[in-house]
Amino acid sequence: MNAEIISIGDELLIGQVVNTNASWMAAALNSAGINVLRISVVPDDAGQIKASINEAATRAGIILLTGGLGPTKDDITKKVLMDFFGSKPIFHEPTFNHIKKLFAASHYPLSEVNRQQAEIPDNCIPLPNRVGTAVGMWFEKNDKVFVSMPGVPFEMKTLMKEQVVPRLKKKFKTSYIVHKTIMTSGIGESLLAEKIKEWEDKLPPAIKLAYLPQPGIVRLRLSASSRDKEKIEAQIEHQCELLKNYVPKAIFGYDDISMEESLGNLLKEKNRTISTAESCTGGYIAHLLTSIAGSSGYFKGSIVSYSNRVKIEQLGVAKAEIDMYGAVSRQVVEQMALGAKKRLKTDYAISTSGIAGPDGGSEEKPVGTVWIGIAGPNGVKAKLFHFGEHRGRNIRRSALMALNILRLEIQ
Amino acid sequence: MNAEIISIGDELLIGQVVNTNASWMAAALNSAGINVLRISVVPDDAGQIKASINEAATRAGIILLTGGLGPTKDDITKKVLMDFFGSKPIFHEPTFNHIKKLFAASHYPLSEVNRQQAEIPDNCIPLPNRVGTAVGMWFEKNDKVFVSMPGVPFEMKTLMKEQVVPRLKKKFKTSYIVHKTIMTSGIGESLLAEKIKEWEDKLPPAIKLAYLPQPGIVRLRLSASSRDKEKIEAQIEHQCELLKNYVPKAIFGYDDISMEESLGNLLKEKNRTISTAESCTGGYIAHLLTSIAGSSGYFKGSIVSYSNRVKIEQLGVAKAEIDMYGAVSRQVVEQMALGAKKRLKTDYAISTSGIAGPDGGSEEKPVGTVWIGIAGPNGVKAKLFHFGEHRGRNIRRSALMALNILRLEIQ
Repeated sequence: MNAEIISIGDELLIGQVVNTNASWMAAALNSAGINVLRISVVPDDAGQIKASINEAATRAGIILLTGGLGPTKDDITKKVLMDFFGSKPIFHEPTFNHIKKLFAASHYPLSEVNRQQAEIPDNCIPLPNRVGTAVGMWFEKNDKVFVSMPGVPFEMKTLMKEQVVPRLKKKFKTSYIVHKTIMTSGIGESLLAEKIKEWEDKLPPAIKLAYLPQPGIVRLRLSASSRDKEKIEAQIEHQCELLKNYVPKAIFGYDDISMEESLGNLLKEKNRTISTAESCTGGYIAHLLTSIAGSSGYFKGSIVSYSNRVKIEQLGVAKAEIDMYGAVSRQVVEQMALGAKKRLKTDYAISTSGIAGPDGGSEEKPVGTVWIGIAGPNGVKAKLFHFGEHRGRNIRRSALMALNILRLEIQ
Repeated sequence: MNAEIISIGDELLIGQVVNTNASWMAAALNSAGINVLRISVVPDDAGQIKASINEAATRAGIILLTGGLGPTKDDITKKVLMDFFGSKPIFHEPTFNHIKKLFAASHYPLSEVNRQQAEIPDNCIPLPNRVGTAVGMWFEKNDKVFVSMPGVPFEMKTLMKEQVVPRLKKKFKTSYIVHKTIMTSGIGESLLAEKIKEWEDKLPPAIKLAYLPQPGIVRLRLSASSRDKEKIEAQIEHQCELLKNYVPKAIFGYDDISMEESLGNLLKEKNRTISTAESCTGGYIAHLLTSIAGSSGYFKGSIVSYSNRVKIEQLGVAKAEIDMYGAVSRQVVEQMALGAKKRLKTDYAISTSGIAGPDGGSEEKPVGTVWIGIAGPNGVKAKLFHFGEHRGRNIRRSALMALNILRLEIQ
């Protein structure tokens, strides 16, 4: 069964509000085995809203609308729907009692516009909105379902979870949609595509593959729809196993786990501790690691040595090495890692030194030149990278690469 | 002039990725005086993509597409557009040279699929993509403009800023929409609304106000549309001046400058240096400061002391104080700030110690309890805050509050 989502509101079309509602709804429908064919964002305009409903109904059997149900003048969705479905207004006593109860609890006075919120179309099924004043409305016409919900995210989510999704599941026999996301790092998108070409070509036709690149990470998403959930899940698991033969080192986890969480799990499992000595990443690696709850169990601290003096005094880097090789060098990044490991008393230490940009590059060491060092029980090693020209991306890619190198080292 | 945005990608329709691209583009078009009539999200499916382009062209004069331009098999936008516009493929030498240059810089091998990215439709104007391999494509048909861009956010943004918006402005005569954003920190949204109520009530009807809250920051956006650009800009400037009387300390900048950049400018101007000693923020303040180009001029380094041992050994915090008051205390956070200032030899030092959550809270010090310390030429001081229960937001709010306190201290 196909569904479409129509998000109503000028604020979405001037870029003031990001349409997080639609993606949340898409994920919820997807999990219920309902395919989302299109998301449309339309303005608070009767003609545009009506046209979008008509168009959606030519393509899909389920049309979910959000927004425009509030008590103020720019909220016109209910009026448009009554026009569309040829409804008459009726006063819905249970809704009014609910609104009165909400206002009593909040100590705000009840106004005429709030009373009007209890007027609903006579030919809809009202869906009680436990957490707000705007009732949800379920219409059926020519075997298609149209549901209108408020745009306030937690009201929409409550209605979706308690009313809309259970009713849709009951009405339509849905097939299962299974997704599995494979997280990879260390290989760029096009090289990855080449390495796994044979595997990709042999994928069963029922399983679709998508590449989702981010700086430093490429996610591979396998999707399939089937009435036999267990069979399709087993097929997808099998393909994940096969993939490991093609890129044994690149896969760091599944289903949108982050690199920092994956590495954290590994450190916990192996009972190892970590610290960082950061120059060009400026504390970003420490931030990624500490964004994970429970990271104090393995992350002990970091010395962000942006100046050479801090490298020398706080990490014990030899001034002579900096003078001879420069701060962006194998020698310095190795000493930084060793210094952090020793002074912060951890099993492993990651270090970075590079030219994040936009200034500071030279012919020999252009912007994007980054040395990454790892000190551990087997000594220290360092590797040179050339990233791009964009400061933010250089920082992000350096950090992810450093975490990835440590992950491979520990494994 | 009306525009429509078509976002292409299955990942948007299963709710895996939030469509931040579309809102960013809508805001950019809006600022250029172009009204966005609709945003459509469609799957990686040739029929659906073509249908959506046809429909958009019946309503709008500008159609912007993103997504599906990558080098892998699921990227079909270029093929669909060539069908749609009856194009022949030509090999575009400048694009290929650019791709080769990007690959040479990154030391990745160039593959056949990358070479194919240099094949472009013969009847489009190629828009150079300075930061990626997928070229933008500008088509014109029946006086309407169709532009295809990659879906990678920073590539799309670079193309929009450098190519698409300037070309659209040149081609279509647009009326001026003036926006001015006032950046505030330190006062929550509802209290801020109370403090500036008189000013807000007296705003001229042509100027609209929007509150845009983020963790730790509230942006106030003034908008007006006019054919007389200078007059409306002067009016908005005047209102900004008046606002200063109501919240003299809260305003840290204008037009989406970040707190870290604003503080960086202040440090440069006053010729002062800074370091941080971070526990609960885990390096995030250092990361924010070093995300600004040129920050090495004033930021010297940071000691991220996640464990008590690092607080004692690297920052000189007295073990007796930790034992007596706990790590989350005025005494410890003050010693941390003094330790960083002294050891990293800076004019100012910021320190944080708190319970970010979700674990580690107690009745006396629940999750969200955060001490922030500032050491400077006038000694050291510390302040206690109670943020919320969400780890990520606690880290973000602590960092922004610390930067804001330092900003007020230096001013």
